[in-house]
Amino acid sequence: MKVARNREDAVVARLARLLPAPGGDVVAGIGDDCAAVKGPGRGNLILLKTDCVVEGRHFVVKDRASDVGWKAVCRAVSDIAACGGQPRSALVACAVRAGQEGAWLSGCYRGIAKAARTFGFDVVGGELARTEGPAVITVSMTGDVEKNRLVRRSGGRPGDVLFVTGVLGGSLASGWHLRFPPRLEQARWLVKHFRVRAMMDLSDGLAADLPRLAVASGTGYSIEPGLLPRRRGATVAAALGDGEDFELLFAVAPRDAARLSAAWKRRWPGIRLTRIGRLESSATRAGIGPVHGFDHFAD
Amino acid sequence: MKVARNREDAVVARLARLLPAPGGDVVAGIGDDCAAVKGPGRGNLILLKTDCVVEGRHFVVKDRASDVGWKAVCRAVSDIAACGGQPRSALVACAVRAGQEGAWLSGCYRGIAKAARTFGFDVVGGELARTEGPAVITVSMTGDVEKNRLVRRSGGRPGDVLFVTGVLGGSLASGWHLRFPPRLEQARWLVKHFRVRAMMDLSDGLAADLPRLAVASGTGYSIEPGLLPRRRGATVAAALGDGEDFELLFAVAPRDAARLSAAWKRRWPGIRLTRIGRLESSATRAGIGPVHGFDHFAD
Repeated sequence: MKVARNREDAVVARLARLLPAPGGDVVAGIGDDCAAVKGPGRGNLILLKTDCVVEGRHFVVKDRASDVGWKAVCRAVSDIAACGGQPRSALVACAVRAGQEGAWLSGCYRGIAKAARTFGFDVVGGELARTEGPAVITVSMTGDVEKNRLVRRSGGRPGDVLFVTGVLGGSLASGWHLRFPPRLEQARWLVKHFRVRAMMDLSDGLAADLPRLAVASGTGYSIEPGLLPRRRGATVAAALGDGEDFELLFAVAPRDAARLSAAWKRRWPGIRLTRIGRLESSATRAGIGPVHGFDHFAD
Repeated sequence: MKVARNREDAVVARLARLLPAPGGDVVAGIGDDCAAVKGPGRGNLILLKTDCVVEGRHFVVKDRASDVGWKAVCRAVSDIAACGGQPRSALVACAVRAGQEGAWLSGCYRGIAKAARTFGFDVVGGELARTEGPAVITVSMTGDVEKNRLVRRSGGRPGDVLFVTGVLGGSLASGWHLRFPPRLEQARWLVKHFRVRAMMDLSDGLAADLPRLAVASGTGYSIEPGLLPRRRGATVAAALGDGEDFELLFAVAPRDAARLSAAWKRRWPGIRLTRIGRLESSATRAGIGPVHGFDHFAD
């Protein structure tokens, strides 16, 4: 069991210890962006992800319902992308308050449908329930990935170069968290053309997420916070700690870094790619000080 | 689009119309107990199910946490069973109130772990979030089923004999709804030895669920309510309408009915199997009068 850095990670680690050891079909389980399991028959791996958005936490009443639906499914798309895969099927479980099952839920499904068309997956089922409290929309998604293209958090090595896509911070204030485009095409391009050693999507902020990738890889890290790509108006602290960026954080061998930077600029001229630092031996943790990313269970 | 019988079904039908048409890999989608999709490569079908339990609706604060965990996952196991399949992987998304992430969540996971050991699936991932309101536990489960053993709701024909396992009614008062054993072994035995034409699990009560099976099959039905197998103390109305029985309702050709009854009695002497009526031509709907099963969106 890896060291838990924040309280949420500690809860996850405690719960994981209560479960039976996974069977031989489970290639990646708790602690990666998605689970990966061998499917029936030979072929690709099946990716599995579940994720929920809670009213008052991940969205508020005044947000457009279609944005809420988009966000709910695109969070899972982002995780499938971070593992190198392609989304295939989604299930949507909605616990809604009285009155939300009409126009609000239809709006929510319009956002879900738009994402399904954009990213090429089917919505194959769902569940509806009433709640007396805040609405909770839970999305479960399957995807698949070629066995040799599955990217986990754990493959990084000391010396690997760290990159992030896009810009960080200010996701909530700018509305990015509701309308972000998951980096699916970009991730598929990355795993097709480069050997990506470790990857994850940034959901709780670089300050919380980079240490998770480093712990999973058994490494440390060093970054230069002043060089982080920031959204207009976002401070360095915001870029480190705001969360909900849904950008890709990944590590490649030093020998691939320059070629990747150049190829990216040609292929994705509209999306920034920034070299933010590198993985180090496990003793080194440099660049993330007292700033912490979002911890769902912090008091 | 099939006729929606109650308000929940109407909401589901409306939302389904907002979604893009499913791709060619989707064998069963919205409206069956599980979705069934072709996996990567050849082989069995992949079954997908999501289901949520909401505090104050499906469980209450004083219920044992391990029972809540058991119920949350066993509802999905029951749906996989109703499609003839075997559960493989589960994802658990928990939105919990402040204070519930300690002993309560551990207890919940103990119940989940017990079910995983009992029914042979892996818990491969999950998600934790805070909510200000009632807790919501959403379980997503994958399973697989041999292509020729997938049972849907839609395969019934007029004249088919209807059976239910176990006894109905009084699930809430007796605590059955928290501790029921999904009829997984029994369903696997049924699809291995008999041609089951249509099957579902009873979650909203026979009065709500049988019409769904009939509508999906394009048939009517006739049952004799006085002959329904009832839990000790349960009235006929309770057996029809209480819900959360998690028993199997299925249809077989008349020529198979007697052989099935006899074989069941030998193989499963401790579990009742009752012939409750039959499917009819679509004009006939007999035996379920003004009693309605549980409708999550009834006012």
